[in-house]
Amino acid sequence: MARLITNGIVVTAADTMRADVLIENGIVTAIGSSLAQLAPQNTEVIDAGGCYLFPGGVDPHTHLDMPFGGTVTADDFETGTMAAAFGGTTTIVDFCLTEKGKPLSSSIDTWHRKAEGKAVVDYGFHLMISEINDQVLTELPDIIKQEGITSFKVFMAYKNVLQADDGILYRTLQSAKQHGALVMVHAENGDVIDELIKQALAAGHTEPIYHALTRPSILEGEATGRAVRLTALADSQLYVVHVTCEEAVQQIAQGRLEGYNIWGETCPQYLLLDITDLEKPDFEGAKYVWSPPLRAKEHQEVLWNALKNGQLQTVGSDQCSFNFKGQKDLGAADFSLIPNGGPIIEDRFSLLYSEGVGKGRLTLNQFVEVIATRAAKLFGVFPQKGTIAVGSDADIVIFDPSVERIISAQTHHMNVDYNPFEGLAVKGEPISVLSRGEFIIRDRKFVGTKGSGRFLHRKTFGTS
Amino acid sequence: MARLITNGIVVTAADTMRADVLIENGIVTAIGSSLAQLAPQNTEVIDAGGCYLFPGGVDPHTHLDMPFGGTVTADDFETGTMAAAFGGTTTIVDFCLTEKGKPLSSSIDTWHRKAEGKAVVDYGFHLMISEINDQVLTELPDIIKQEGITSFKVFMAYKNVLQADDGILYRTLQSAKQHGALVMVHAENGDVIDELIKQALAAGHTEPIYHALTRPSILEGEATGRAVRLTALADSQLYVVHVTCEEAVQQIAQGRLEGYNIWGETCPQYLLLDITDLEKPDFEGAKYVWSPPLRAKEHQEVLWNALKNGQLQTVGSDQCSFNFKGQKDLGAADFSLIPNGGPIIEDRFSLLYSEGVGKGRLTLNQFVEVIATRAAKLFGVFPQKGTIAVGSDADIVIFDPSVERIISAQTHHMNVDYNPFEGLAVKGEPISVLSRGEFIIRDRKFVGTKGSGRFLHRKTFGTS
Amino acid sequence: MARLITNGIVVTAADTMRADVLIENGIVTAIGSSLAQLAPQNTEVIDAGGCYLFPGGVDPHTHLDMPFGGTVTADDFETGTMAAAFGGTTTIVDFCLTEKGKPLSSSIDTWHRKAEGKAVVDYGFHLMISEINDQVLTELPDIIKQEGITSFKVFMAYKNVLQADDGILYRTLQSAKQHGALVMVHAENGDVIDELIKQALAAGHTEPIYHALTRPSILEGEATGRAVRLTALADSQLYVVHVTCEEAVQQIAQGRLEGYNIWGETCPQYLLLDITDLEKPDFEGAKYVWSPPLRAKEHQEVLWNALKNGQLQTVGSDQCSFNFKGQKDLGAADFSLIPNGGPIIEDRFSLLYSEGVGKGRLTLNQFVEVIATRAAKLFGVFPQKGTIAVGSDADIVIFDPSVERIISAQTHHMNVDYNPFEGLAVKGEPISVLSRGEFIIRDRKFVGTKGSGRFLHRKTFGTS
Amino acid sequence: MARLITNGIVVTAADTMRADVLIENGIVTAIGSSLAQLAPQNTEVIDAGGCYLFPGGVDPHTHLDMPFGGTVTADDFETGTMAAAFGGTTTIVDFCLTEKGKPLSSSIDTWHRKAEGKAVVDYGFHLMISEINDQVLTELPDIIKQEGITSFKVFMAYKNVLQADDGILYRTLQSAKQHGALVMVHAENGDVIDELIKQALAAGHTEPIYHALTRPSILEGEATGRAVRLTALADSQLYVVHVTCEEAVQQIAQGRLEGYNIWGETCPQYLLLDITDLEKPDFEGAKYVWSPPLRAKEHQEVLWNALKNGQLQTVGSDQCSFNFKGQKDLGAADFSLIPNGGPIIEDRFSLLYSEGVGKGRLTLNQFVEVIATRAAKLFGVFPQKGTIAVGSDADIVIFDPSVERIISAQTHHMNVDYNPFEGLAVKGEPISVLSRGEFIIRDRKFVGTKGSGRFLHRKTFGTS
Repeated sequence: MARLITNGIVVTAADTMRADVLIENGIVTAIGSSLAQLAPQNTEVIDAGGCYLFPGGVDPHTHLDMPFGGTVTADDFETGTMAAAFGGTTTIVDFCLTEKGKPLSSSIDTWHRKAEGKAVVDYGFHLMISEINDQVLTELPDIIKQEGITSFKVFMAYKNVLQADDGILYRTLQSAKQHGALVMVHAENGDVIDELIKQALAAGHTEPIYHALTRPSILEGEATGRAVRLTALADSQLYVVHVTCEEAVQQIAQGRLEGYNIWGETCPQYLLLDITDLEKPDFEGAKYVWSPPLRAKEHQEVLWNALKNGQLQTVGSDQCSFNFKGQKDLGAADFSLIPNGGPIIEDRFSLLYSEGVGKGRLTLNQFVEVIATRAAKLFGVFPQKGTIAVGSDADIVIFDPSVERIISAQTHHMNVDYNPFEGLAVKGEPISVLSRGEFIIRDRKFVGTKGSGRFLHRKTFGTS
Repeated sequence: MARLITNGIVVTAADTMRADVLIENGIVTAIGSSLAQLAPQNTEVIDAGGCYLFPGGVDPHTHLDMPFGGTVTADDFETGTMAAAFGGTTTIVDFCLTEKGKPLSSSIDTWHRKAEGKAVVDYGFHLMISEINDQVLTELPDIIKQEGITSFKVFMAYKNVLQADDGILYRTLQSAKQHGALVMVHAENGDVIDELIKQALAAGHTEPIYHALTRPSILEGEATGRAVRLTALADSQLYVVHVTCEEAVQQIAQGRLEGYNIWGETCPQYLLLDITDLEKPDFEGAKYVWSPPLRAKEHQEVLWNALKNGQLQTVGSDQCSFNFKGQKDLGAADFSLIPNGGPIIEDRFSLLYSEGVGKGRLTLNQFVEVIATRAAKLFGVFPQKGTIAVGSDADIVIFDPSVERIISAQTHHMNVDYNPFEGLAVKGEPISVLSRGEFIIRDRKFVGTKGSGRFLHRKTFGTS
Repeated sequence: MARLITNGIVVTAADTMRADVLIENGIVTAIGSSLAQLAPQNTEVIDAGGCYLFPGGVDPHTHLDMPFGGTVTADDFETGTMAAAFGGTTTIVDFCLTEKGKPLSSSIDTWHRKAEGKAVVDYGFHLMISEINDQVLTELPDIIKQEGITSFKVFMAYKNVLQADDGILYRTLQSAKQHGALVMVHAENGDVIDELIKQALAAGHTEPIYHALTRPSILEGEATGRAVRLTALADSQLYVVHVTCEEAVQQIAQGRLEGYNIWGETCPQYLLLDITDLEKPDFEGAKYVWSPPLRAKEHQEVLWNALKNGQLQTVGSDQCSFNFKGQKDLGAADFSLIPNGGPIIEDRFSLLYSEGVGKGRLTLNQFVEVIATRAAKLFGVFPQKGTIAVGSDADIVIFDPSVERIISAQTHHMNVDYNPFEGLAVKGEPISVLSRGEFIIRDRKFVGTKGSGRFLHRKTFGTS
Repeated sequence: MARLITNGIVVTAADTMRADVLIENGIVTAIGSSLAQLAPQNTEVIDAGGCYLFPGGVDPHTHLDMPFGGTVTADDFETGTMAAAFGGTTTIVDFCLTEKGKPLSSSIDTWHRKAEGKAVVDYGFHLMISEINDQVLTELPDIIKQEGITSFKVFMAYKNVLQADDGILYRTLQSAKQHGALVMVHAENGDVIDELIKQALAAGHTEPIYHALTRPSILEGEATGRAVRLTALADSQLYVVHVTCEEAVQQIAQGRLEGYNIWGETCPQYLLLDITDLEKPDFEGAKYVWSPPLRAKEHQEVLWNALKNGQLQTVGSDQCSFNFKGQKDLGAADFSLIPNGGPIIEDRFSLLYSEGVGKGRLTLNQFVEVIATRAAKLFGVFPQKGTIAVGSDADIVIFDPSVERIISAQTHHMNVDYNPFEGLAVKGEPISVLSRGEFIIRDRKFVGTKGSGRFLHRKTFGTS
């Protein structure tokens, strides 16, 4: 069915224009001041009522249905993508974990099984690399070209669990350069953090705040700088996930100034929450346990400025939800056992609009760039995703900037028993959301179909 | 008359899409995969033949009909804007010089008289500030709001001629902040350059190369850093014109990293020519006399990288043409008397495409950003100018990327007897150019009307 | 008469040794574990009682008997050098002001007249350069070689009074390079400060704190960086006086990292006092008016670290005393009329020992380096001054590190009615002081002779 | 026996003075202009003939009798220290290797056995740390206090051989801070180098030049920065050995600017040789195989400037000699098997004088500082070693600055068949050398006694 959205303001990473949007077969076919004439018969006309029409958000960083520390994230591809849809996000790229000694293809298969029949928005996979050997090197080109998985994640932290050494990171960078993929790093010095955690526990420090105190920002800055240098040496491309602090921003900025292909992502939690949240009583601090951890408040302005001035380019959610009761409390007696992560996939979009555009830190176009367009370009799904343009998938958010909404676990759609932004008022709300031209959210209600989300066979790096 | 451009690839700073463009009353009214149905009767259909449709270039830095060193630039608003049109540029912002002790309004009147009845593309004015006193401070708010002149230029060089001291720069920054304007600086340390020139001449060094040797890059870096610091202190906004060197890029990058509102422009000559050109025999070096001067070749890569990674944001022409015979030769016996500047307004667009996109240094979208969109946004004429979007002026370049053309004074349209890029092959050429929906260049021929260009009453800073 | 100091601990910039010191004809002739045998008959033996024997302090920065803002400093060469002696300083280099249009030699004559017959410690002159013309350029080589004045001061601040432009600074650097002198700068951006002062006064802000608020540290950092860049261009040598802030330290460090000949001086007031002192009620803030001004407290640690790690090399007093009653109060209604400066010449030495060595921030040898040796080397009076070594002038301080003393205007020897460190306890005190082998202070009493201080004909730069 | 050296010029890190030096019982007891009267009967009078009297060199970095790659260094404590003596070095600190799983004390015993009865100059030991566990942590305080071993070396390179991970480095830094020791690092990223070596060999690149090409300077800069950050986090103290490149100097300078306790050492080979030496034909490049490797020539000026301006503080030899025939040729078919290192212990002193002082890059006092004094202070043997001062060991070099000598394996005293500086003319030569008041070299002949060198029980960090 064709749809014509009238009376909206179309916003892209470049433009802001009052225009109708015509959708046929799930694709945007025209943007114009008055497209009624062009609409086929039976076109459904939707009055956007003066709302913004944003491209559906692209969340480049989610962990759904992921095992971690003896438990599994509270949200799977069904609840997670449904929450994403409510929040205005229509594309996610999830992290496919791998295991040493197992073929990468089998991990990918596992991940496909997690998503298929569940996801309500389109999705792609990043692939974690924890070892490099002949087997892995043989598989990589196929994974990139045949599987459409064109980004790899290397962990510089989580010693003895996920952490890879610098040799593996370097070879991954080389291989990515050769075959057209983008390397992502979790940049913290895992060796030293491991020592700090042991020392804190040995000293009897078990509270959540020690999660932050044992992962100081200097160790994120160090690891970020290290990854930048290895990228420079390999003449490759690097995407630093979840940047939290000034030290890391400086390293990324320096690498970019030297001309290297370095990008950085931050997350709403680092822009808006801070280390003092970890000191909340009654173990509530555990709700704020992310890695890297929340930082001192002064880092927030650095991150906002970096989004504004282009030292950082994207905002991901790092969605990784665990219930406060039954999961987070695994670490009640030992902060190092608190599952890391939180539920952000739903509110990422609104938080960035409200705190970014609403408070004058970002322009409308910058908002679209960081919430959708740039991630789509970097991860090989542009122009299919990440914009409102002729020929692109009609992933569109009808967003009312005048509504004020209070974030709460009581009303959110994530399958988790708390929200780290509980009680925060945000200005602006996605009213309706289309994915490939079909409503999945309409007037704040889910109207989509479980399993309608499709796997995105992504293009190689640098081609979109 | 309505026009429908079919069979083109529309490129904006964000998007690249195969789409028709419908133009009515000079405005883009629709972009779509097939707009024939929408076109009014008598719509002229133009087959773009698979060419790119770029927004008309926005050149934020021209000097037309400008007195300098006892002579006047070879190109006035007629020849200059006609050449701009041939080259794919449909908007310019020209510098209105002022004189100490004279009301600013009278200088503005003079500049209006230079442009009216001559310009074939739309134009705005920047205003030079060389003194700050009660008179000036009283005039500024009106100039910004009533005259639509929302950017001011301060010279840190040209001692005893154009140079303002740091107090004037600072107060201009303060006033710009207060009233909504953008301050532009020519950043070189004029005091020291003045000494170096005197010393070179005293030593009998009269050749063109001494123009470059008496303006070392360290002095551009110093002045750029100084302007950045004063902007930081005033919490204002700064645009550094014609950035040529690594030292200056670093200062701009540092200011941006600290979160300040700093932007930088470079020019094709700095990206593509170098200091050795000034050593050409038979006084030919005089053709390459710009201020700041051409630099050692290694700075070129720094500038390209800065455009790619966002430390610099725009490319201006600094159009300021003087004939080799009869004007440049005023300095035959004394390099300091060579009129500064060269003819670039026409080739800026093609050079950036050919050397930028053609050589893989910039994406198509980045090209549009630096050649048109960003300048339009910074200088208050967006979205009217600088993009192809519904509601925007139909300033459109039909650009054939497959054509190879040799740049030459014999074929260029600037009113000047040489071209600094003589003999250079560029890939890609503007075939036809529309300004507000009317062809001004059609199949490489001028079909516009002298005087059809309109003055652009620009918006205050930060509102577009 | 010969003197033998026994039972002391000799400290130099390199060494710390229990040793006797033998002095003959005003010169140190031996340092040894037991020199009695070597002493001529009638040698006076002085038991140092386990005290430190430091080289007499070298204060590279004093303003005695100097006109400023319609008044004259409270201390002249008699009271100033007597106070210096009490404090352990046996060499000063004072600033000889010059006037535009007047031969430099006449200013030097004036300064000789101020000092002769008054000074009780040896002294040299720096020469201020406020204009560069043929006359000045002709005089300079002679001043360096014949007059023994081998350092020049250029002011980048005090607009319309002392300030020189960058062309003058650059030519001074060139001339210094050519003839063997060291250029000193007062690095603050005078043009912008002038604006800020006017604006503050126009807004009715007349209190002393506005002195600091109108001279923000960013303007010291800027001017310091500018001076460093000009020095680099001239391949000359630069000494930045009274460095107060992190921004300036960074610029000096960067210049040194690039290999340039750059040194920096700080002063006790910047190490120990801060901007809140300017807010003291009842106009007391005026006692803390220096230019550059006192800074936020966090800069203090930066300065101490810079002394420790070698980004700064010396500590001067910037002695420039004005009475609170009758002089400072010239600015009671207008902070800009408060005479700048304070009385530090006497306590510089003790303050650095007590807060530096006493608090573990500097080693004993570093203390000697920054309080005496390095200044002597930089300003061409080493090894005559600045050390305890065979062949050097016997300028020696017998310093008891165990004494605690309270600084107070009631007990100090400067001719001024307040002390900015009033009430501060310092550990360690100069008990006796010898100049060229003669006691000038003995057991805390002045025993010298007015006028015994000699003018130091200093060596050219780089030869000591 | 007492000795009186007359007619020399005593040079310390601070002073330069014409003075006699009296030595009694191996200790300097007086320095004076004429000490004959003070000399006991039977004092031997030595006429220094106008030569410089330098403190004996302190070489903080030697590897004698050390197993490496299946062979053992050509020089042991006998030949190595004898060569050191010829060259003017009277104190060395050698690296005691340890083995995982073995008590540290047993390695120390081994090292004592290597030195005892052989060394002709005094020596101390650094201790290598390759693992941290309870055993090691228990031993460390005793090693520091009882054994007088107050510096630990951690290798960030030599994967699977000597390399420690960042956790071990961090704990070593913590322990050093707690117990008063100095941590030394070999800073190169061993993981990535390991990959680069494998890749080079796999590509058939076996020549010596690939040793340098597989250890790019970016990886030294990275590791240096990492060590600096860990030191900052531990608030400890760090000494970076054998710094070779601009990237590393910048990291050290940045750490020092931030106030941390960071020092850096370079070596004559990095100051004077460059990467092109590795390309010498007939496998001669193997003579120039050090780790880190020789760098591009432009790094040399950076290193010299860093010594001049204080970003680097010492010059070690990194003595580690292997014969060209029979040892270096272990790597004839595979550069990775070439034993790393070269013979420098003898010429370090002369090379620094000739190229440093002789060419105007360092003052005489700076020369003494970097060749002797600073290392003595950092490594806990000052003032016993590293200066000529009353109470210090009479380790004195009589150095004739007017002699020109050609370096050659034919005439050197190291037990190795080549000299990397073969054919280089150096100005200035140690004529005679005293260790604790006894001649070990006299008129260029060895007159000492095998085994006369004593082990130095060094003081804890920060106490000398």
